[in-house]
Amino acid sequence: MSKSLKKRRQKYGLPPGALVHVGDKPDQKVKLTLIDYSETKILQRNNLSVEGCLSFMDKPTVTWINVTGIHDENLIGEFGSRVGLHPLMLEDIMNTTQRSKLDDYKDTIFIVLRLLKYDEQDSSVIDEQISLILGDKFVISFTESNDDVFAPVFQRLHLANSRIRMRGPDFLCYSLVDCIVDHHFVVLEHVDEQLDNLEDELINLPSTDTLQKIQHKKREITSLRKTIWPLREVVSKFQRLDTPLVKETTRLYLHDVYDHSIQAMETIESFRDISGGLLDMYMSTMSQKMNEIMKVLTLVATIFVPLTFIASLYGMNFKNMPEIDSEWGYYGTITVMISIACFMLFYFKRKKWI
Amino acid sequence: MSKSLKKRRQKYGLPPGALVHVGDKPDQKVKLTLIDYSETKILQRNNLSVEGCLSFMDKPTVTWINVTGIHDENLIGEFGSRVGLHPLMLEDIMNTTQRSKLDDYKDTIFIVLRLLKYDEQDSSVIDEQISLILGDKFVISFTESNDDVFAPVFQRLHLANSRIRMRGPDFLCYSLVDCIVDHHFVVLEHVDEQLDNLEDELINLPSTDTLQKIQHKKREITSLRKTIWPLREVVSKFQRLDTPLVKETTRLYLHDVYDHSIQAMETIESFRDISGGLLDMYMSTMSQKMNEIMKVLTLVATIFVPLTFIASLYGMNFKNMPEIDSEWGYYGTITVMISIACFMLFYFKRKKWI
Amino acid sequence: MSKSLKKRRQKYGLPPGALVHVGDKPDQKVKLTLIDYSETKILQRNNLSVEGCLSFMDKPTVTWINVTGIHDENLIGEFGSRVGLHPLMLEDIMNTTQRSKLDDYKDTIFIVLRLLKYDEQDSSVIDEQISLILGDKFVISFTESNDDVFAPVFQRLHLANSRIRMRGPDFLCYSLVDCIVDHHFVVLEHVDEQLDNLEDELINLPSTDTLQKIQHKKREITSLRKTIWPLREVVSKFQRLDTPLVKETTRLYLHDVYDHSIQAMETIESFRDISGGLLDMYMSTMSQKMNEIMKVLTLVATIFVPLTFIASLYGMNFKNMPEIDSEWGYYGTITVMISIACFMLFYFKRKKWI
Amino acid sequence: MSKSLKKRRQKYGLPPGALVHVGDKPDQKVKLTLIDYSETKILQRNNLSVEGCLSFMDKPTVTWINVTGIHDENLIGEFGSRVGLHPLMLEDIMNTTQRSKLDDYKDTIFIVLRLLKYDEQDSSVIDEQISLILGDKFVISFTESNDDVFAPVFQRLHLANSRIRMRGPDFLCYSLVDCIVDHHFVVLEHVDEQLDNLEDELINLPSTDTLQKIQHKKREITSLRKTIWPLREVVSKFQRLDTPLVKETTRLYLHDVYDHSIQAMETIESFRDISGGLLDMYMSTMSQKMNEIMKVLTLVATIFVPLTFIASLYGMNFKNMPEIDSEWGYYGTITVMISIACFMLFYFKRKKWI
Amino acid sequence: MSKSLKKRRQKYGLPPGALVHVGDKPDQKVKLTLIDYSETKILQRNNLSVEGCLSFMDKPTVTWINVTGIHDENLIGEFGSRVGLHPLMLEDIMNTTQRSKLDDYKDTIFIVLRLLKYDEQDSSVIDEQISLILGDKFVISFTESNDDVFAPVFQRLHLANSRIRMRGPDFLCYSLVDCIVDHHFVVLEHVDEQLDNLEDELINLPSTDTLQKIQHKKREITSLRKTIWPLREVVSKFQRLDTPLVKETTRLYLHDVYDHSIQAMETIESFRDISGGLLDMYMSTMSQKMNEIMKVLTLVATIFVPLTFIASLYGMNFKNMPEIDSEWGYYGTITVMISIACFMLFYFKRKKWI
Repeated sequence: MSKSLKKRRQKYGLPPGALVHVGDKPDQKVKLTLIDYSETKILQRNNLSVEGCLSFMDKPTVTWINVTGIHDENLIGEFGSRVGLHPLMLEDIMNTTQRSKLDDYKDTIFIVLRLLKYDEQDSSVIDEQISLILGDKFVISFTESNDDVFAPVFQRLHLANSRIRMRGPDFLCYSLVDCIVDHHFVVLEHVDEQLDNLEDELINLPSTDTLQKIQHKKREITSLRKTIWPLREVVSKFQRLDTPLVKETTRLYLHDVYDHSIQAMETIESFRDISGGLLDMYMSTMSQKMNEIMKVLTLVATIFVPLTFIASLYGMNFKNMPEIDSEWGYYGTITVMISIACFMLFYFKRKKWI
Repeated sequence: MSKSLKKRRQKYGLPPGALVHVGDKPDQKVKLTLIDYSETKILQRNNLSVEGCLSFMDKPTVTWINVTGIHDENLIGEFGSRVGLHPLMLEDIMNTTQRSKLDDYKDTIFIVLRLLKYDEQDSSVIDEQISLILGDKFVISFTESNDDVFAPVFQRLHLANSRIRMRGPDFLCYSLVDCIVDHHFVVLEHVDEQLDNLEDELINLPSTDTLQKIQHKKREITSLRKTIWPLREVVSKFQRLDTPLVKETTRLYLHDVYDHSIQAMETIESFRDISGGLLDMYMSTMSQKMNEIMKVLTLVATIFVPLTFIASLYGMNFKNMPEIDSEWGYYGTITVMISIACFMLFYFKRKKWI
Repeated sequence: MSKSLKKRRQKYGLPPGALVHVGDKPDQKVKLTLIDYSETKILQRNNLSVEGCLSFMDKPTVTWINVTGIHDENLIGEFGSRVGLHPLMLEDIMNTTQRSKLDDYKDTIFIVLRLLKYDEQDSSVIDEQISLILGDKFVISFTESNDDVFAPVFQRLHLANSRIRMRGPDFLCYSLVDCIVDHHFVVLEHVDEQLDNLEDELINLPSTDTLQKIQHKKREITSLRKTIWPLREVVSKFQRLDTPLVKETTRLYLHDVYDHSIQAMETIESFRDISGGLLDMYMSTMSQKMNEIMKVLTLVATIFVPLTFIASLYGMNFKNMPEIDSEWGYYGTITVMISIACFMLFYFKRKKWI
Repeated sequence: MSKSLKKRRQKYGLPPGALVHVGDKPDQKVKLTLIDYSETKILQRNNLSVEGCLSFMDKPTVTWINVTGIHDENLIGEFGSRVGLHPLMLEDIMNTTQRSKLDDYKDTIFIVLRLLKYDEQDSSVIDEQISLILGDKFVISFTESNDDVFAPVFQRLHLANSRIRMRGPDFLCYSLVDCIVDHHFVVLEHVDEQLDNLEDELINLPSTDTLQKIQHKKREITSLRKTIWPLREVVSKFQRLDTPLVKETTRLYLHDVYDHSIQAMETIESFRDISGGLLDMYMSTMSQKMNEIMKVLTLVATIFVPLTFIASLYGMNFKNMPEIDSEWGYYGTITVMISIACFMLFYFKRKKWI
Repeated sequence: MSKSLKKRRQKYGLPPGALVHVGDKPDQKVKLTLIDYSETKILQRNNLSVEGCLSFMDKPTVTWINVTGIHDENLIGEFGSRVGLHPLMLEDIMNTTQRSKLDDYKDTIFIVLRLLKYDEQDSSVIDEQISLILGDKFVISFTESNDDVFAPVFQRLHLANSRIRMRGPDFLCYSLVDCIVDHHFVVLEHVDEQLDNLEDELINLPSTDTLQKIQHKKREITSLRKTIWPLREVVSKFQRLDTPLVKETTRLYLHDVYDHSIQAMETIESFRDISGGLLDMYMSTMSQKMNEIMKVLTLVATIFVPLTFIASLYGMNFKNMPEIDSEWGYYGTITVMISIACFMLFYFKRKKWI
């Protein structure tokens, strides 16, 4: 949360459309990858220049340009103006704190999505921003870093008879969105596993740490929820968009993605319930434990306090105490003490305290 | 939850429409059962081949094909392409983690529903997926395993003058949906019974186990809720669908199913309230018990601690202690002690602690 | 809850429209009462046969048939088919677990409402089902048992110049609905009183029973809520129904009933808040009490434990203890003890623990 | 709550439109005040008869009749029938348990509002019902008692050039509604002050009373909320009403009242949050206090219990105890005891318990 | 809260449109600043008179008048009537307790927004009211005090080729709104930081103060929420307004502000969750601490109470106690005591209480 707020602040006071990269600046260079394909042939170019990309965009074939890294203002700015992208679109691409959204710029459709990633080292969930631009004959995608998110799509494109090769850029764009939504479930599964572990820890060996872990997980789920909820809206808008850029046949497939996004939403909602339940469980486990401790204390105290009193009684130094001088006084007292202890134990047993 | 997430993951990276069975693979073979009927005659074939089914579908009579088992990709794929089903439809049928839904493919209507079943051994609720396809002259149903869910419909079909025989495939489809919704109530009744038992346990003999049972029941109800809620939507959509496949007379009956689905929803909501109430009750029972233990401890301690002090007092070895040498010192001290104890008991009585 | 679930289950697997009475079977016979009236004359027949009823229904006057008892499948079935009622309507009338609803069968309007009744013996709320059918020239009402719910309407009908006599069957139907809604407030007032009593009990003499009573009241309110909420929907639908059966002048009166149904809803909502508040109050009263007990324990223990220590000190048997032999040792020790006790009491006073 | 329920019950079983005053019957007589004004002249009559009022209503000037007291069924009935008011309208005016609402009777608009008043004696909020009827050339207002709610409007009417004089009855009606809504804020401020006081009490000197006060305030806020919420709806409906009775210029002013009603709603919502927060705070203050008490108990007990044990040890009467006879035994033991006490205190210090 | 209620009350009973400044009256004088610009030239006048402003407003260039300070009724009244502003608009400008809103006065658009500011001294959030009027060729802005909120816009206006210079007053108005919304994030970041600090305090050194700080922060967030929520509505209305005053190109930019306002809303929602979580955490930390204290008490008491009993036993003065005279009695007793203590420690270890 705090991180994204700090990022946002970097922009305060700047004119709209100002190209400022908001986010962490990685070291690697910005990389342009181009794939140009039709039903019959396919062609891939890595590390192209902006110039190189433009020559492909006019062809009747489908052109997919994937831009990896968005921290180079000059390059993105040049690319944008050459391809003819709206300044606000470029600003949104470079400001990596965007909420998922879909803007209809009539001749192009601009989609911002958040890619969920699971960081194995921190066991935490991070997200990065992916922007997609769907045009008449092209799709442009911008990613923050070069994870192979789109690897499955690359592979399918290189298969000669795959469905994706026979359809237009809208189907390609759908495939990319589908890919990102599918990725959500990989992350959700990790969170699910961690919740299971937390529950095991709670039942077996709860400690103060457990409470903090539950609180952190709860907050992570809250923030995940904020990321996942807008997704449904975007996909729904994409599907019902009144535009010739999306063909009727693709809409059916988008409906499928829509179902998945609802499933992701419901999963995160149930996580919320579960994490809330864990907190309740922690609280009652703690009070349970307290109860048990109190029981032992009460047991020991209520048995020995009266006995000690009796012992003290005969420790008094009064001159005139007949029992003291009696031969069986000591044994009688011991007997009384044992009787009291037995009665107490029996009473506790009946009360189900032992 | 976790199970369905793991199932989903099997599909990550696959192209849409890819026929992959997502779910547990049972041993039994996929079985096709066909019933072909009109007002005057009825005919049933078990264990038919795909080829055998097709010959019936062109006839003017109503054809119902029930496919038991959906784990054989080849057979389902062949069946689908021969009958002319959309690839996405086939994918949804085989991916058993679907949310209940209704898709309108113009010439057919595709319904996915979740059948709730009560597992007597685990006393837990499980669900499986049932897919229905309503066409012009046929209904095709896919079930995961061969429980006799549809047995009541089978029986009614074989009665000569039953209403179901006189109407078209839409009424058959309605009957199947009605059957599944009715099944919900059988399961809900089991859950209701378990909640009653839990409450009895809470009142009579609450233990740490009880807390975990309540938590589990609560989570089960949350997951049941996720299954039942979309049902209302599906039935409502079915009823208001703008399609010639559903006749006006059938819509009235669908309205009835709609009422039942709302009743199921309200029942699950009240279960949620009840399970939440059980948790509150557990917490207050526990703190109640703690109170009682504390009271005993306080009683014993506050009575005997002062008495012990007095006894210790006269256990001191000072040379010059006049009371010690007095003849009635011992009896006087005992009297004072009894008075103090009586006063304490009286005080506690008035405070309503005893 | 559980009762209505069990009732519902009796119907599982039956064909739709099957006439099965779902509910408790009372001993009394089904009774048909008929009132036929116009502005100028009125006529009442008790214990009519089905045949007898039919002869009145064709007349231009308004006919009201009240059927008391719905457990006789044959009679209801015969009545239904003679009058020409839809099978689903008859099924709904006999299945006494219906949710309040209004179905528009074009030539008739079918209303199911739940009548709330207060059972003085159990101090609990029970409900029964009332079905109303509004036709062109008639109203048919079905009640489970013969409480005199409609008595006020009977009386008004027999007054020569009452408004109800000058209007059509829609106004009669409105009067019956109004009667049922008014009845809600009688029951709500009882619940209100019980909540007041519970609060008094909580403040004056809370016990473990109180907790269970609150929990039960809370659950009763939850179930009442489920009964009352659909009412608003039914009345609203009735009022805005696009049908010639309801005249414009009657709609104004229905709007009035609508206001009352909203008031009932708001009352039950505030009951929910109140019962939740009672639970909170119970919890804090309990922890309050615990606090008080702890204070007494701490007081007694912290005062006497140090004193006892001092007494024990001089109870030691060391040979060389100069204080022991001092003449004023005993009195000095007593003085020290009293000082300590006074200091403690003063400290507690300042801390506001006494 | 309970009061309004009891009031309502008085009406059970009566025909609709029956003129029965539901509410407390004050002693004073019903009073009719009439103001008749145009841009140029104004005229006021107090204690008019019904007859007297009618003569003014036909004039082209704006007539405002204010009826103070609504408990005289005959007078209200006569007034209603002479002016031509609908029976339901009269019934609503006399039943003082109405929810705020606006009914459009085409030739007149009927508004029921609840006036909030702060009772200084009980420090509680009470409300009474105000009904307004807006006609073509008149406004009629009914109030339960004669507080000077409308005093500001009276004053402004008597100013020669005030805006209210230049406009029609709709502006007068708006002014009355505005007056009532403004009155809400006076009451809300009182509640706000009480919440502040409660918070001060909580921080400085919380007692069992505080809990009950918070609970009562919470319930009062819940009931205030029920009164304030419908207001927004009424004003919104008034503003957007499709009627020639409300002129376009007045609608702008109504929009202003709408903003105020939303502000009132938000204020009451924040009160709800605050009172909930107070309850949480009470609970944690209590457990805080408990903690502190426990700490003192533990401190005293854990320090003196071991010391007392040592003292008891050397109080034993064994013959053969070498330490007893040692010359420095007593001083050594005292030294050991002081060391243990110091160590304990140091340990508690480090644990931050002191 | 309380402050704004008190402010509001100042207005009770006044006629609508009455110019009364509701708010704190600062000392400084009201200041008018005017900027008149077109694509080619720009001109700024500070401390102009009302007269001076009017002469610019008729020119075809874009005129921006910024009024700093709104407490001078006469000046604002004169300004309003000369420029031709609606009385209600002027009333709203001077009443500084307005909720954010947008009113469409056909020839002008009136926007009220709340500017959030962070008060470093109190570490609290304060807000002031900013009113904007968008006309055909002008924008008028009213601010309560002269913070340099609009400084970034001033700077950009003075740049020759900036986008803002080339567009009309609607773009200027958008820039001002954007400026205010951006300011929200600066404040939200401060709140975020404070929540982080509170969490650190909770984990490291929780005290009674911490609880009050959390409660205050929670209430601040509730009030911030009330300020931020209406913002979304205003921006959304602005964007979709059916008016020629807002050009199509500007709407795209407004959509961008809309996204930001949603982001602000989500941030404040997550703050709510976090502050609620802090409260839960405080409660469980406290009960955690209590547990730990109880454990030590139980440990000490359960070990020493039995030992003291044994010591007291042999402190009894009975004549006939064989152990007393035994030579090894003392050492045997010590051995038994050590065994008991060891057993206890071992038992506690196994129970994981140490």
